[in-house]
Amino acid sequence: MKKTTLLKLSGLGALFLFVGSASAEDSYAEDRAQIENLQARYMFALDFRDAEAYAETFTEDGVLDYGAGQIVGRQAIRDLINRMRENQQQRQAADTSDLRPSAGRHNISNIILKVDGNTAVGRAYWFHMGNNNPERAAQLNSFGHYEDELVKVDGEWLFSKRLIMNEQVADWAHKGPNPARLSK
Amino acid sequence: MKKTTLLKLSGLGALFLFVGSASAEDSYAEDRAQIENLQARYMFALDFRDAEAYAETFTEDGVLDYGAGQIVGRQAIRDLINRMRENQQQRQAADTSDLRPSAGRHNISNIILKVDGNTAVGRAYWFHMGNNNPERAAQLNSFGHYEDELVKVDGEWLFSKRLIMNEQVADWAHKGPNPARLSK
Amino acid sequence: MKKTTLLKLSGLGALFLFVGSASAEDSYAEDRAQIENLQARYMFALDFRDAEAYAETFTEDGVLDYGAGQIVGRQAIRDLINRMRENQQQRQAADTSDLRPSAGRHNISNIILKVDGNTAVGRAYWFHMGNNNPERAAQLNSFGHYEDELVKVDGEWLFSKRLIMNEQVADWAHKGPNPARLSK
Repeated sequence: MKKTTLLKLSGLGALFLFVGSASAEDSYAEDRAQIENLQARYMFALDFRDAEAYAETFTEDGVLDYGAGQIVGRQAIRDLINRMRENQQQRQAADTSDLRPSAGRHNISNIILKVDGNTAVGRAYWFHMGNNNPERAAQLNSFGHYEDELVKVDGEWLFSKRLIMNEQVADWAHKGPNPARLSK
Repeated sequence: MKKTTLLKLSGLGALFLFVGSASAEDSYAEDRAQIENLQARYMFALDFRDAEAYAETFTEDGVLDYGAGQIVGRQAIRDLINRMRENQQQRQAADTSDLRPSAGRHNISNIILKVDGNTAVGRAYWFHMGNNNPERAAQLNSFGHYEDELVKVDGEWLFSKRLIMNEQVADWAHKGPNPARLSK
Repeated sequence: MKKTTLLKLSGLGALFLFVGSASAEDSYAEDRAQIENLQARYMFALDFRDAEAYAETFTEDGVLDYGAGQIVGRQAIRDLINRMRENQQQRQAADTSDLRPSAGRHNISNIILKVDGNTAVGRAYWFHMGNNNPERAAQLNSFGHYEDELVKVDGEWLFSKRLIMNEQVADWAHKGPNPARLSK
């Protein structure tokens, strides 16, 4: 992470010294901070069915896999969230109860990130809570974990691949050992 | 984020030293790290009814709005938490069961932060769990999100305004589109 | 946080320059980023009963105290997780139902860190969710908080002591005031 540049420009005694030290921009902290922000923006975009903001967390050819097969590219990912929004709106329109619209929230925790230059590998837990019940009572619905690949494109971290493991669905549940064995 | 220092050092000739480095102190990572710590201190202070520590997470004229109207300034905010503590103590004193005191915990997740110099805008999810039931069993109680404004005062990040959206209360639930559209 | 570099530049005479800049490596952000990663690795290692990865989050003479007394040193800590894995495997082997193996997940939130050189003190909340029920439905099981001491050994942050408070067990529940009063 250390970068030191020594330029000696000769002159009649003039010496120009250019010292570059460890840049905050290429530190682990900086990469992690930006990726954490990305992870959070992803969640808001998902829960509020913001297709554009959601798709923008992926690279142009990014891959999303939540268990039902790979969705490839921003356009296909955008379409997925738009369909989710339309389905939600149709359900709400068909709801004849006096209940207010229910809310759902995905949360991320335990973010592990291993950064190597402009690429990174991530692991994290997720869980979902909602109140889609007659009492609009908060309840935990599901949980699982993410297996992520990220790339830094033009200075911005993006998901190039997100694989979602989901413990509420037998086929999508994790099998095998610790998925966070990325070395340190 | 770049800070450039020009030092003129006398000698047998003029020597110009150009030192350019991104300071860790004014990086996004540093701001985010300090604000995350603030967010966590807020939660402990809230749950343990530590009025002083809670009020200290706000600016002197900071505004707290959890839905019932604005509470303005550290003193009013401190008073609020003190009343919460007194109410809790009275409930515990009036409890004739053999149960141990119940516990409640607010958690924060999905922190989005957009920093601009000495000000920042934040979004984050929160959820509360507790065991205020005869079995002292853990249960999820409520969730929502924060809409925050922060300022850096004498090197310390503080809340200048915190708006709390709460999905368990119809009037305090979020309506409308993605509240995290802050640009990136 | 400041690092000072002494450069000796020859010329017509000796010139000593002090160049001080905040290094990204010894900033609060960098320490916090690495400790957050450690906290996350700990959780994956625990839930997937990865004794080696779990023990590696502690110093060689690290202390773990989850309420039942102190477990001292990596070997004893490793043995604990190995016993947990063996117990889990025995329960699964004895399970005559058609259910898939259940899953459990510990999550961390509200991480407070106070760093002083190569040592740090931490506080954080934890909560556990699982689906060990006939429906394999997600449910919240327990919560509490951590009181941590950390040291940086050969550039790597490790737990030297982790004390686990658990609100589901009367003897292990927190009593008293805000445990996060570490100053800032």
